[in-house]
Amino acid sequence: MITLPDLTRPPLAIRRISLDTGRENVAVISRHSNALRAEVFRGFSRVELRINGKVLLATLMITDDDSLIGPGELGLSEPAFRRFNEPVGSLVTVTPAASPDSLDAVRGKIQGRTLSAAEMTAIVNDLAHFRYSDMEIAAFLISSARFTSTEELLALVRAMAEAGTMLKWKNPIVADKHCIGGIPGNRTTMIVVPIVAAHGLMIPKTSSRAITSPAGTADTMEVLARVDLDVEQMKNVVTSCGGCLIWGGHVNLSPADDILISVERPLSLDTPEQMVASIMSKKLAAGATHLLIDFPVGPTAKVANAAEAMRLRKLFEFVGDHFGIAVEVVNTDGRQPIGRGIGPALEARDVMAVLGNEPGAPADLREKSLRLAAHLLEYDPLLRGGTGYARAKELLDSGAALKTMQQIIDAQGPSICRSDLGTLTAEVLATDDGVIASIDCLRINRLARTAGAPIDKGAGIDLFKKIGDRVDKGEPLYRIHAYDRSEYDLAVAGAKNDSGFAIENHKSGGKP
Amino acid sequence: MITLPDLTRPPLAIRRISLDTGRENVAVISRHSNALRAEVFRGFSRVELRINGKVLLATLMITDDDSLIGPGELGLSEPAFRRFNEPVGSLVTVTPAASPDSLDAVRGKIQGRTLSAAEMTAIVNDLAHFRYSDMEIAAFLISSARFTSTEELLALVRAMAEAGTMLKWKNPIVADKHCIGGIPGNRTTMIVVPIVAAHGLMIPKTSSRAITSPAGTADTMEVLARVDLDVEQMKNVVTSCGGCLIWGGHVNLSPADDILISVERPLSLDTPEQMVASIMSKKLAAGATHLLIDFPVGPTAKVANAAEAMRLRKLFEFVGDHFGIAVEVVNTDGRQPIGRGIGPALEARDVMAVLGNEPGAPADLREKSLRLAAHLLEYDPLLRGGTGYARAKELLDSGAALKTMQQIIDAQGPSICRSDLGTLTAEVLATDDGVIASIDCLRINRLARTAGAPIDKGAGIDLFKKIGDRVDKGEPLYRIHAYDRSEYDLAVAGAKNDSGFAIENHKSGGKP
Repeated sequence: MITLPDLTRPPLAIRRISLDTGRENVAVISRHSNALRAEVFRGFSRVELRINGKVLLATLMITDDDSLIGPGELGLSEPAFRRFNEPVGSLVTVTPAASPDSLDAVRGKIQGRTLSAAEMTAIVNDLAHFRYSDMEIAAFLISSARFTSTEELLALVRAMAEAGTMLKWKNPIVADKHCIGGIPGNRTTMIVVPIVAAHGLMIPKTSSRAITSPAGTADTMEVLARVDLDVEQMKNVVTSCGGCLIWGGHVNLSPADDILISVERPLSLDTPEQMVASIMSKKLAAGATHLLIDFPVGPTAKVANAAEAMRLRKLFEFVGDHFGIAVEVVNTDGRQPIGRGIGPALEARDVMAVLGNEPGAPADLREKSLRLAAHLLEYDPLLRGGTGYARAKELLDSGAALKTMQQIIDAQGPSICRSDLGTLTAEVLATDDGVIASIDCLRINRLARTAGAPIDKGAGIDLFKKIGDRVDKGEPLYRIHAYDRSEYDLAVAGAKNDSGFAIENHKSGGKP
Repeated sequence: MITLPDLTRPPLAIRRISLDTGRENVAVISRHSNALRAEVFRGFSRVELRINGKVLLATLMITDDDSLIGPGELGLSEPAFRRFNEPVGSLVTVTPAASPDSLDAVRGKIQGRTLSAAEMTAIVNDLAHFRYSDMEIAAFLISSARFTSTEELLALVRAMAEAGTMLKWKNPIVADKHCIGGIPGNRTTMIVVPIVAAHGLMIPKTSSRAITSPAGTADTMEVLARVDLDVEQMKNVVTSCGGCLIWGGHVNLSPADDILISVERPLSLDTPEQMVASIMSKKLAAGATHLLIDFPVGPTAKVANAAEAMRLRKLFEFVGDHFGIAVEVVNTDGRQPIGRGIGPALEARDVMAVLGNEPGAPADLREKSLRLAAHLLEYDPLLRGGTGYARAKELLDSGAALKTMQQIIDAQGPSICRSDLGTLTAEVLATDDGVIASIDCLRINRLARTAGAPIDKGAGIDLFKKIGDRVDKGEPLYRIHAYDRSEYDLAVAGAKNDSGFAIENHKSGGKP
């Protein structure tokens, strides 16, 4: 253990510093601070701020510039200021911060110990209250990646769910769906939710925004309606429509999950246990009773083969059974994008075309959505077994699902973002005659992001060809949309370099 | 892997921000930056800065305050500005930073793979060039703490040494000593070096400053002479005196070690392999051929028992043999502080008293130093076996060691720091008659730090009693010295609460 000096000194006046430091709480003091000597912090980079019994941990930075922070002041970066929630000028005491007590359990985990439920709860609470530094979060994740017992996993899921909002619904069946991700254009949620709600099953859906992909369901739904609803607003929408399609950011479900993900992602940590803890803690907090999970399987998808898919499925089922959530996993085709559009506005167009039964609507998006909705409808005890698909099709074909979608859009409120398609366009052409043999999902995602998605709602890629389609040399494979000239140039150059499409030409031999 | 957008945009003009962000490179851009849209960085917190082929990785923060950083500017915190070393106003391009390539090897290590020498080298080079974030450093350390093969350890030691300055000496014997630490007042190095150099063996010693203890050898030596020498200055001192006693900070031996330690310490990671890699990489870089390692063994020391000491010794010997460094480990008494003073000025006083053969000089510090020096002198092939101790005693008693110490002090240059003893003093008294049964090293370290050491050179603790000494109730056990009133109050209150001394009273029974 580190030996901390016992120090309490005169308090400092809070000053707000316009620095967005993300997840990290940052505090700034003067090198000539009245309250403490900057040198004391040689070896400690975190401080504990206290005011009226309220405590905040922050990473310390030191300045020599009195105009930034004077000797009697303490600067707080925007996130720290928001989280501490005390007015400018309030007097705060500053001491070197000891590590959170729960870090002893993390050290035990590093040494190979199995943690108790109480230890998991303590860790998750400290995580959710921003008390862990990045390196401490990494320590927990990596020691857990090595080995997590099933008892630890259950304790982790419960602690993560209970650390934030726990939604309670009166209905005996609360349906939910989740896709483990990775497939461009896969916006089935926005079709499944209105079908299921139109049938009369409750489906209060929260979604995430894209972090590394060109669109999350929340980004795409935002083209059609407001998505930044809080818990009360969400409940109102669900009460009136039977479902919703909102961003989870203001509902605070499993807040430790977002913090863990922010470290898992740059480290590319991706164990089955961590995926299950992330998804199941959010679903437990959301009050779901019946959960359908979409596992796209394919060479560039998250799950590469059936054996991996089975192990992951069993883990989801085990955790679901423990918490009384009926979990069903369906393996789907993850070899290529779903639908035509990739990017928020293009995907929203596809979704509305399917809901509106337009003749040109993408058949694969429609079929996959019907299939997933069918699974959820089968949870209805009043529905005759095996008729889920027919009922879903009926609700879609009759326009009932579209009507419910319009009610949800009205209840959530009108979209406030610009979502016309990017007017800088370029068509990417086939370089040979033949048949589309494969489409690289990772490449297509990257090109769509380069074009500006999801920040520019109308940027992205519009696909004209799918696997198995015949093309002639010079025929367009897809169109790039962008707003921004330099992003457009980069996306076009990127597509020329590698379009993501492989064409098999049987005349010239091609792949075996 | 994360999909990064390909983005290159207009360059930004460098501006310097007076923020000491420690190890971390921090860059600040405006939310309305000309060069890139802040939202692009949702999900990436690190950026790559380029100018004339020079590259720096930095953590990104975003500001809304144009007076801090305007749309055409890029702010660099002090360490980033220093490391990038380009003038204010220089134009720099900014792109989202991909993780260093060597992180793939770290991911392999997390999954239990054994790393190749080339992978270890790549990791260490990225570490030494500040390309790893805190969480990435933690990922490497924790995955290595789980299992490090002997081949990996050797590759790590070599890579760490080769990443910085590699000192070369012409002498066939280059002696060095190291203590694994934890014992207050243990300043034998400052007595051993002049004895060994006076004998004629070369001993170019670099030391560290205290991070969590009340003094490092560099802090204590700084009371007597300048210690912040660079490589050329160090070589001059060693050439003229046969040895030196400097701070390693400007010599850049095994720079990755300091970075690893800065993460190991807050996480309290402390595996034998990490300790061996840290020490042996520095000694290999320092050009040592013969190394003596002091293992204090005791209940509050780093090595708690003989079994642990043996495992660690074997690991040091194995690595030493591989690199052709003759390693000798001696277990020493680590049950209590060595000498009387704890804190830079008090320790320097003890050291000079021993070198000056003053009657009141602490006998334990003298004896331990003679014993360690004897081991090093035995490396001299010209010395008759078994006469090392007698020779060390002769060099000390004759004043030859003191003379060499004065040469070293003169060659390094006069001290420039204030080092009079703190004038706020308090004596901590025995609360009972009896015999001193134990002294808690951790507690004494903490009290000395609370009193202001090592920042205030003259602050600390002056011990009057050691284990086995008889005391009467009311007799002083030690004196606290401080400059600063509030630190003084805290240290005195801390000592009253727990003096760190246990007194055994045989009249009233005492411990069995």
